[in-house]
Amino acid sequence: MKNTFGNSITITLFGESHGEYIGAVLDGLAPGIEIDESYIELMLTLRRPDGKISTPRKEKDNFRIVSGVINGKTTGTPLTVLIPNENTVSSDYTALKTVARPSHADYTAQCKYHGFQDSRGGGHFSGRITAALVAAGAICKSALEKKGILIGTHIKCCNGVNDRGFGDYSSDISKLNEKTFAVLDDCCENAMKEKILLAAQDGDSVGGILETAVTGIPAGIGEPWFDSVESLISHMMFSIPAVKGIEFGVGFGYAYMRGSDGNDPFKIENGRIVTYTNNNGGINGGITNSMPIIFSTVIKPTPTIFKPQVTVDFVKMTETVIEPKGRHDPAIVHRARIVQDAATAIVLCDMLAMRFGTDWLKGSE
Amino acid sequence: MKNTFGNSITITLFGESHGEYIGAVLDGLAPGIEIDESYIELMLTLRRPDGKISTPRKEKDNFRIVSGVINGKTTGTPLTVLIPNENTVSSDYTALKTVARPSHADYTAQCKYHGFQDSRGGGHFSGRITAALVAAGAICKSALEKKGILIGTHIKCCNGVNDRGFGDYSSDISKLNEKTFAVLDDCCENAMKEKILLAAQDGDSVGGILETAVTGIPAGIGEPWFDSVESLISHMMFSIPAVKGIEFGVGFGYAYMRGSDGNDPFKIENGRIVTYTNNNGGINGGITNSMPIIFSTVIKPTPTIFKPQVTVDFVKMTETVIEPKGRHDPAIVHRARIVQDAATAIVLCDMLAMRFGTDWLKGSE
Amino acid sequence: MKNTFGNSITITLFGESHGEYIGAVLDGLAPGIEIDESYIELMLTLRRPDGKISTPRKEKDNFRIVSGVINGKTTGTPLTVLIPNENTVSSDYTALKTVARPSHADYTAQCKYHGFQDSRGGGHFSGRITAALVAAGAICKSALEKKGILIGTHIKCCNGVNDRGFGDYSSDISKLNEKTFAVLDDCCENAMKEKILLAAQDGDSVGGILETAVTGIPAGIGEPWFDSVESLISHMMFSIPAVKGIEFGVGFGYAYMRGSDGNDPFKIENGRIVTYTNNNGGINGGITNSMPIIFSTVIKPTPTIFKPQVTVDFVKMTETVIEPKGRHDPAIVHRARIVQDAATAIVLCDMLAMRFGTDWLKGSE
Amino acid sequence: MKNTFGNSITITLFGESHGEYIGAVLDGLAPGIEIDESYIELMLTLRRPDGKISTPRKEKDNFRIVSGVINGKTTGTPLTVLIPNENTVSSDYTALKTVARPSHADYTAQCKYHGFQDSRGGGHFSGRITAALVAAGAICKSALEKKGILIGTHIKCCNGVNDRGFGDYSSDISKLNEKTFAVLDDCCENAMKEKILLAAQDGDSVGGILETAVTGIPAGIGEPWFDSVESLISHMMFSIPAVKGIEFGVGFGYAYMRGSDGNDPFKIENGRIVTYTNNNGGINGGITNSMPIIFSTVIKPTPTIFKPQVTVDFVKMTETVIEPKGRHDPAIVHRARIVQDAATAIVLCDMLAMRFGTDWLKGSE
Repeated sequence: MKNTFGNSITITLFGESHGEYIGAVLDGLAPGIEIDESYIELMLTLRRPDGKISTPRKEKDNFRIVSGVINGKTTGTPLTVLIPNENTVSSDYTALKTVARPSHADYTAQCKYHGFQDSRGGGHFSGRITAALVAAGAICKSALEKKGILIGTHIKCCNGVNDRGFGDYSSDISKLNEKTFAVLDDCCENAMKEKILLAAQDGDSVGGILETAVTGIPAGIGEPWFDSVESLISHMMFSIPAVKGIEFGVGFGYAYMRGSDGNDPFKIENGRIVTYTNNNGGINGGITNSMPIIFSTVIKPTPTIFKPQVTVDFVKMTETVIEPKGRHDPAIVHRARIVQDAATAIVLCDMLAMRFGTDWLKGSE
Repeated sequence: MKNTFGNSITITLFGESHGEYIGAVLDGLAPGIEIDESYIELMLTLRRPDGKISTPRKEKDNFRIVSGVINGKTTGTPLTVLIPNENTVSSDYTALKTVARPSHADYTAQCKYHGFQDSRGGGHFSGRITAALVAAGAICKSALEKKGILIGTHIKCCNGVNDRGFGDYSSDISKLNEKTFAVLDDCCENAMKEKILLAAQDGDSVGGILETAVTGIPAGIGEPWFDSVESLISHMMFSIPAVKGIEFGVGFGYAYMRGSDGNDPFKIENGRIVTYTNNNGGINGGITNSMPIIFSTVIKPTPTIFKPQVTVDFVKMTETVIEPKGRHDPAIVHRARIVQDAATAIVLCDMLAMRFGTDWLKGSE
Repeated sequence: MKNTFGNSITITLFGESHGEYIGAVLDGLAPGIEIDESYIELMLTLRRPDGKISTPRKEKDNFRIVSGVINGKTTGTPLTVLIPNENTVSSDYTALKTVARPSHADYTAQCKYHGFQDSRGGGHFSGRITAALVAAGAICKSALEKKGILIGTHIKCCNGVNDRGFGDYSSDISKLNEKTFAVLDDCCENAMKEKILLAAQDGDSVGGILETAVTGIPAGIGEPWFDSVESLISHMMFSIPAVKGIEFGVGFGYAYMRGSDGNDPFKIENGRIVTYTNNNGGINGGITNSMPIIFSTVIKPTPTIFKPQVTVDFVKMTETVIEPKGRHDPAIVHRARIVQDAATAIVLCDMLAMRFGTDWLKGSE
Repeated sequence: MKNTFGNSITITLFGESHGEYIGAVLDGLAPGIEIDESYIELMLTLRRPDGKISTPRKEKDNFRIVSGVINGKTTGTPLTVLIPNENTVSSDYTALKTVARPSHADYTAQCKYHGFQDSRGGGHFSGRITAALVAAGAICKSALEKKGILIGTHIKCCNGVNDRGFGDYSSDISKLNEKTFAVLDDCCENAMKEKILLAAQDGDSVGGILETAVTGIPAGIGEPWFDSVESLISHMMFSIPAVKGIEFGVGFGYAYMRGSDGNDPFKIENGRIVTYTNNNGGINGGITNSMPIIFSTVIKPTPTIFKPQVTVDFVKMTETVIEPKGRHDPAIVHRARIVQDAATAIVLCDMLAMRFGTDWLKGSE
């Protein structure tokens, strides 16, 4: 499976940055799930560059759902979202770019596709394809909400500026889902943006860390070995371009802790088993324990920068210097959080459908 | 797929800590791969506790290959490894343990298996099952070596004590593969062991970080989205008990870097395209670029400790205190590196077989 | 996997009969495969009803390839075909049809989708979706041809009228691929058409048998057990609506034969191992033996007929009579052969890519 | 996936005819399913040759369940069955058989495994491996029975001698499950056995047809396209060696019927929707309609016969004559019915677990 992921609920992604459409097929969703198109639009808008700290390319994602929905509800058969690529510059349609942008997929695409790849705007490797993932994920995220499962992601760190951690999950998640620039501590918003703008002024870019919380997930989801919750979530998250690391709960912090500090003691609260701490990020032995699922990913700085960089022409096999022009984000961390929300929603729906069957998400009605 | 992973080459794990056998079925391997049983034995020995800084339970893993090999070579049909559980204490065979060890899978197993799980020694969740993974992985690792692909893992950090990073990959990997306690800088071995022994004296445990390097991998392996090299490796690594995070290349360090620092500029060396730095860990856009694949995982401190811990009885639904007795590792990081090597070898073989076909690993003979 | 099939090369189908688009995502194809749009158009035309022995609904399938192709060649990333539904009658867009057509999916769709299914024109169950399969399959079929692998299907039987069997495979396949009504013995064409027209006059429908031959396939493709050539081909063929049986080689004829008659003795011909007979349809032990792959499927009579039929209203839970109006095929066997060709091409490409790697289909160029 | 099949519940097969063990890993079963070892033994006994109309090799299948069961109930983690190969003749352990038995997998194995295959007794291609499938399937079959889902298979035809069809499903299935030689009409038993014995006397073999009925299956199971009930069942059935065709309901009979005869009109009976006839074999549009699932497979005559046959030595590349000695079945159709029951049970459990979740099979208790 290359561009398809999932077991009971699957997502298939297609399209290139400058092709006619990008899109996604979301298959296996329960029938009867309400589709709130304005919510999809909202998530697409939040993913889109805003022209200030993101690339000035402004385009509305006029998504269309062309299958799998009737009368505003899912049919249970494959749901297809199409998003046209409207704002493409078509002058350069045929040329294969042979000078590799460092840390981008230009050279590896050549190794894999032998010159037949669509190199316009990054082609199939472009972050633009995540718009289709977001549209599909918006449907899953809103379906999960109706089952009491909430997802929120904040910018935990942007180029060294840190946000506070999650406190009251439920109010923090609500807050995040209303914000354009998703930080929990409003004070750090400007400091982060400054970092981004400074980098932009230098023709450079910055990276950051995104932290996601999921509340309301029942205990007993996941599998001991290869389909552990961590395995499935990480598989999905590394599909998001620029993600280069993931940790669950305190993650790499465990390297400095002892078991007595790192373990999460159990207690009983209102007749439910919970833990005092949540260092494990809601997962023990690959299976949910009903505490919030917590994980963080690191988003590398946008590889395309305006500074001259040493590189090669992989066809001529010569060394050269690249100095990209055009529109590029000095940071994508604030946009990627929407992608992370969406991707999380999809993989959770799949795990729940495997556990409880294909009707589960439909709700009790 | 719950206990099976892979596309062209698959691994299926089975068994419980105190059952008759644990084992693995490794399917899809090319025919004609030489099986070096002494190498499998070596890797199993390195995984096993040594009685000093690990649990004193001493048992030889008398593995047997019961299918898929004839005359010392793979047949191309499923290869099954069985490892008997010889050193089990059978008095307590029937009792379901209802007092949950914090951060262990006792409670989540209950939520998923409703009391029918085998709770003896951790059952199917036990780290013991990794012995089967190691046996299968040893075969893959040695097959890769014959194709010039080398894998080595070191203890990058143990409870705050850090090893040096990889320098000359090829000699470093050779060195690691000969060591019992896999550090690159011999000086830190004692400091790390001291940390472990100190924790042991306190009835406590410690965690650490493992860093793996893979050299000799051709460019052009992997896929842009869901089957990115990072996705597949992370999926596999999170199957290893105690892994709570993974990062590729500089990983979480990207949160503090700018694009101009984090990008890996290309150059030509001996007619081959390589990069000056390797911050991306050998992967661009989900696809290998022929530089070494580098990733680190964090291993949490062994959850079972001898200190009293607050917890619950999940059947009686009462709060209680647990104070485990018996044999437990104060650290598993030095043993887990072998598991990580093995798991890496398996997932790489699968990616290569997908790319180049089922005969590729067989070699040129 | 519900609407996705394959291992290395996958096909994902989506759409409903009266939705905006139907389509397919074909993923995993080698890069650099030439796309001959006129060939796709030809296959779509042959699949389409012709207005005489098929439903009078005349619509051109204005397919568009919206991803995965640039400069007339595959990129190696997902190839998406969209086909608009232009000739739909939109008056009845909202009503759920609650009177089940016998032998159609109306009632089972209700059991699975609880009333949320799109029941217009059969919705996602409609044979119309096979147009997308045909478009994708046309690409695979023509790629296989360049590798010397030819596929052809004839109407072996139509409502009791039998065609002759394959003789000289290569000339027979060529002939079939040029014919609108695919019979090997031209004499039986009229007799078959008469059967269809007679049924049409009675408001009834007829079924038939399709036989497919594949030549040029190398020996050694397939797997002993679950991914036997028969398993994969049959899995795919039963995805075609109306297929209710499949047999390889002499198939059900084996029930009347002895081993000494049914076995295919080997001989050497021009330095290659071949068999005298081909009762096994080119497959021994689930694996190709280089003889032509031969299989037949049975296509049941179109379930929608104009005669009154006893049935139920599955919502009111009452017995009633249905007497459909509108456009319906009195036979689909002559159209389904194109679908069978297409489906065969896709599953073969997948098997070959698994065996020889993802570049194999690209050719030697 | 080569030797693994399924989505939520998977089966992995391993072993060779003359290896140490054959076995199966059955993963994904609900926890708490009772294991009736005597039932497994019964099914294994019925699969075994009886020494009269089957090969005289007499061996008891001393199966052992070595994981996934405790206190007589499934744990929910992988269940592994091992069956030792006790009655093997070990003199000829190393020789690759290079003279291909016609219609057997000897030559195709060579094409795929290049001489590294285990050719002793058919190796991994041997029908013996079905013993492991039967052991796993026995568990599934008996779990289904507790949910009211019954499976039975009869010898519909043996070398031209026909049994009557199913009448009263429930009593017919009960009867079949108690019989050694599974026919519905006792009168045809002797006629069939005579056919087998006559063939045996001639050093020849015969084939037949097996028909399976499944009752009690709820409506709404299966998928419209690639995971149709027919697709999944046929995928599994063609994994059984010697199966060369499958048909659902009237199957190939549809080639001679009109829609008005072949359709199954609906009616209401005791408040449930049922059909008057069951030509579709309980499946409409790939989805169950609650009527019994009915399908037939054809079992080709055992390819190994004692008569001299023309063939080749595929290493020497010479033509030669083969005249096998040893123990071989003149028919396997009466043994294969147990394999078909078992395989059916496994694939149904998987479909039900996908639809209703992983706990469904556990029962209500």
